[in-house]
Amino acid sequence: MLIVKKFGGSSVADKEKIYRVAERCIEDYRQGHDVVVVLSAMGKTTDQLIALAKNINPNPSKRELDMLLATGEQTSVALMSMAMGALGVPSVSLNAFQVAMHTSSAYGNSRFKRIDSQRIRHELDSRKIVIITGFQGVNKYEDVTTLGRGGSDTTAVALAAALKADVCEIFTDVEGIYTADPRVVPNARKLKEITYDEMLELATLGAKVLHNRSVELAKKYGVQLVVRSSLNTAEGTIVKEEVDVESMLISGVAADKNTACIAVIGVKDIPGTAFKIFELLGKKNLNVDNIIQSIGREGTKDISFTIARDDVRDVVSLLEENKNRITAQRIEVDETVAKVSVVGAGMLSNPGVAAKMFEALYSAGINIRMIATSEIRITVLLDEADAEKAMRVVHDQFMED
Amino acid sequence: MLIVKKFGGSSVADKEKIYRVAERCIEDYRQGHDVVVVLSAMGKTTDQLIALAKNINPNPSKRELDMLLATGEQTSVALMSMAMGALGVPSVSLNAFQVAMHTSSAYGNSRFKRIDSQRIRHELDSRKIVIITGFQGVNKYEDVTTLGRGGSDTTAVALAAALKADVCEIFTDVEGIYTADPRVVPNARKLKEITYDEMLELATLGAKVLHNRSVELAKKYGVQLVVRSSLNTAEGTIVKEEVDVESMLISGVAADKNTACIAVIGVKDIPGTAFKIFELLGKKNLNVDNIIQSIGREGTKDISFTIARDDVRDVVSLLEENKNRITAQRIEVDETVAKVSVVGAGMLSNPGVAAKMFEALYSAGINIRMIATSEIRITVLLDEADAEKAMRVVHDQFMED
Repeated sequence: MLIVKKFGGSSVADKEKIYRVAERCIEDYRQGHDVVVVLSAMGKTTDQLIALAKNINPNPSKRELDMLLATGEQTSVALMSMAMGALGVPSVSLNAFQVAMHTSSAYGNSRFKRIDSQRIRHELDSRKIVIITGFQGVNKYEDVTTLGRGGSDTTAVALAAALKADVCEIFTDVEGIYTADPRVVPNARKLKEITYDEMLELATLGAKVLHNRSVELAKKYGVQLVVRSSLNTAEGTIVKEEVDVESMLISGVAADKNTACIAVIGVKDIPGTAFKIFELLGKKNLNVDNIIQSIGREGTKDISFTIARDDVRDVVSLLEENKNRITAQRIEVDETVAKVSVVGAGMLSNPGVAAKMFEALYSAGINIRMIATSEIRITVLLDEADAEKAMRVVHDQFMED
Repeated sequence: MLIVKKFGGSSVADKEKIYRVAERCIEDYRQGHDVVVVLSAMGKTTDQLIALAKNINPNPSKRELDMLLATGEQTSVALMSMAMGALGVPSVSLNAFQVAMHTSSAYGNSRFKRIDSQRIRHELDSRKIVIITGFQGVNKYEDVTTLGRGGSDTTAVALAAALKADVCEIFTDVEGIYTADPRVVPNARKLKEITYDEMLELATLGAKVLHNRSVELAKKYGVQLVVRSSLNTAEGTIVKEEVDVESMLISGVAADKNTACIAVIGVKDIPGTAFKIFELLGKKNLNVDNIIQSIGREGTKDISFTIARDDVRDVVSLLEENKNRITAQRIEVDETVAKVSVVGAGMLSNPGVAAKMFEALYSAGINIRMIATSEIRITVLLDEADAEKAMRVVHDQFMED
């Protein structure tokens, strides 16, 4: 088998942990498997490097920041190879230049375009464990790029796809994917399997176990993912195209507090205003979800939508600047909201899911401010203060069956 | 003009120093020059990275160590570019992959084979200051190599040669090349000019201002070097092919305490024994200098030579292992010796230099244990305890004229 194993920064934070990961990889190697390991930067290294950069220049060039950040993973992979050497197993570390991990040009948020597998195959053929820097790539100018937070997951999946790996294991500090965050919902259950689509909805909604783009990529290339603990050998959760038809109605409940609600009040009720607003935001790469349009007074309407809380300042200033163009009377912001969602492929054939969710929230006295649905997801926007209670009551409603 | 400027680790050790270097480079840039900056790793970074590696594996693979160490310079160059950005000057950092600094394969001690200048020229043409990682290269396997301690000097000279730079400035914590170490010889004088050959002899002998290989390379490609202070704008010392014929008889006095004397006692007086000894050492890359052969008792002879003190253990164990083969009765080691040398192109036409040196030492009551000479250098081996006194009396003897 060819196995790609990805370990995050906390799994390689110190010498002991590095050795634990090395031993875990060597187990597979000794069983005759080809092993490719993808590592993040050690512990809080990336944060420290960002702080170092901001100390020099509060607004550093993105190109130079990527150049700096890339040293973090290069450090991890070299040390890991040294640990494996001490354990008597041949290995080799490779950075993005050496593998030739081609990405798009965008610094800080690039995407893989093409990965050469030749060097890796050559090293595997000479029976080495191959240790590769996660999170980074090289663009067409031969400049270092990074994939954004959580990008090492994407590196692992992209490598698994390029190498046609049998499995891609994502090691994390939880034992797998749960029906809800166990810290919030005590009786949350670990899932044995979940579909790519369900995982995507959960990842987007803040379940934070897998980087979204990595799941998209896994779906696109049919890479079977296993999410499991780096601390024990418990079986994890398998993420794949289709799961057992006997599976639960919903696979998870997720909350996302990184959200804010923007209302553009009193725009003229003429064609093109919504287009103008979202074109403005799109041009600045500001992501919008859950748009609602309601009728206002005297031939006007109100357009509301949710955005990531980090983007509030950018969005508001952009809208204020263009207030006349979009014919808005005023812009309102509410940052005390949260999204709670249920996700499940099962709801495709079970129209009662939404009603069941609303019933649970109503019984708990929680007010719903917006509703948005996809084929396999129902999301409600509610007061941030109600988010955790909402998760628990919704989870119990579905899981008690 | 195209100017290559090299700054060592202590010159970029913190934010303030990074800005000072940035400003210094920008001065030249604003005068319309093309500026290429070569940087070492910040402060003690390289030592810290070696300690990090040894903590994981006391005997790390050299390939992986180079992979790790290379992160040091990449950090410096990215931060320098950010500092220049904050000062409003366009710049770009490049690592060894990006420049394509091809070296030999040897990890930890590689040599430049070819440097592509295309990317650098392209960046200079778009009026950027180009900031390049010193000390590192890429070998034919596309693996990271390092040049060994002081390698950033060599990087600067190699780049100056490849780019046909007008001048290569090496910034250091002294104001230039002195007739002797000013901490030892208080009336040492700064030289205005020195030849490559003199500098080479001084560098080899422990003057420690310039990395030896960098001077060899400068001589080979006719790169004019300027050694000057990173702390002030004092004129430094120019290192070039020929200097003013009116120059001093000698250009410097140097001491080297990193030396030990090995005596191979009682080897058979037959052809080939010396060859066998130095072949053994040569194969292990153990450098030997100042060989003396003397007649011993009863058809035997003694062969003595000096080596770097770091190599004593390796050399002695190698000789002991091969005692029979080299027909030695015993091996003696003396680690309490030092070399003191005078260097000067002037001595080529002045046969009295050696006598003058010996006279100074004799007057001071200092015993000479070995003598070795080249065309422009006279070296004596003496007790380590006498080294500094010897430097002073020899320096005074020549400089008082």
